[in-house]
Amino acid sequence: MKAKIFIKYKDGILDPQGKVTGNALNSIGVKGIESLSIGKYIEMEFDDITRDEADKIANDSCKKLLVNPNTQTYSYEIIND
Amino acid sequence: MKAKIFIKYKDGILDPQGKVTGNALNSIGVKGIESLSIGKYIEMEFDDITRDEADKIANDSCKKLLVNPNTQTYSYEIIND
Repeated sequence: MKAKIFIKYKDGILDPQGKVTGNALNSIGVKGIESLSIGKYIEMEFDDITRDEADKIANDSCKKLLVNPNTQTYSYEIIND
Repeated sequence: MKAKIFIKYKDGILDPQGKVTGNALNSIGVKGIESLSIGKYIEMEFDDITRDEADKIANDSCKKLLVNPNTQTYSYEIIND
């Protein structure tokens, strides 16, 4: 069982790294990007647990450590592999 | 049109931030995680372009700037929104 967690900044929170990266792409000739934001992509692997347990661990991890609820939002998928 | 890009370390590449975060979760009582890796989640927004154009921009961005092919792999999805 695996979890894929996606963390990004809330709308309206300044993301300077994303802004600079968008500008850099434009300046090297990659045109057409209106906006770009950079967040975190976290993969967790679990051993021999149920989907419900994996769901709880992924959610707990976000709430207790990974995500700053003031500035970030998150979503996740649980995958059977 | 929007692209969601996921960048992660290749298998076998040391990811100290992921390792430390996994240990930290364990030490605050979130048990059951076998391994954890931290990569980047990039969202791009486009204005009025086709799916093929969005695909090319996302791929070019990864190849020309965002991804280090020596240590990282990437995947992406194009979404009509």
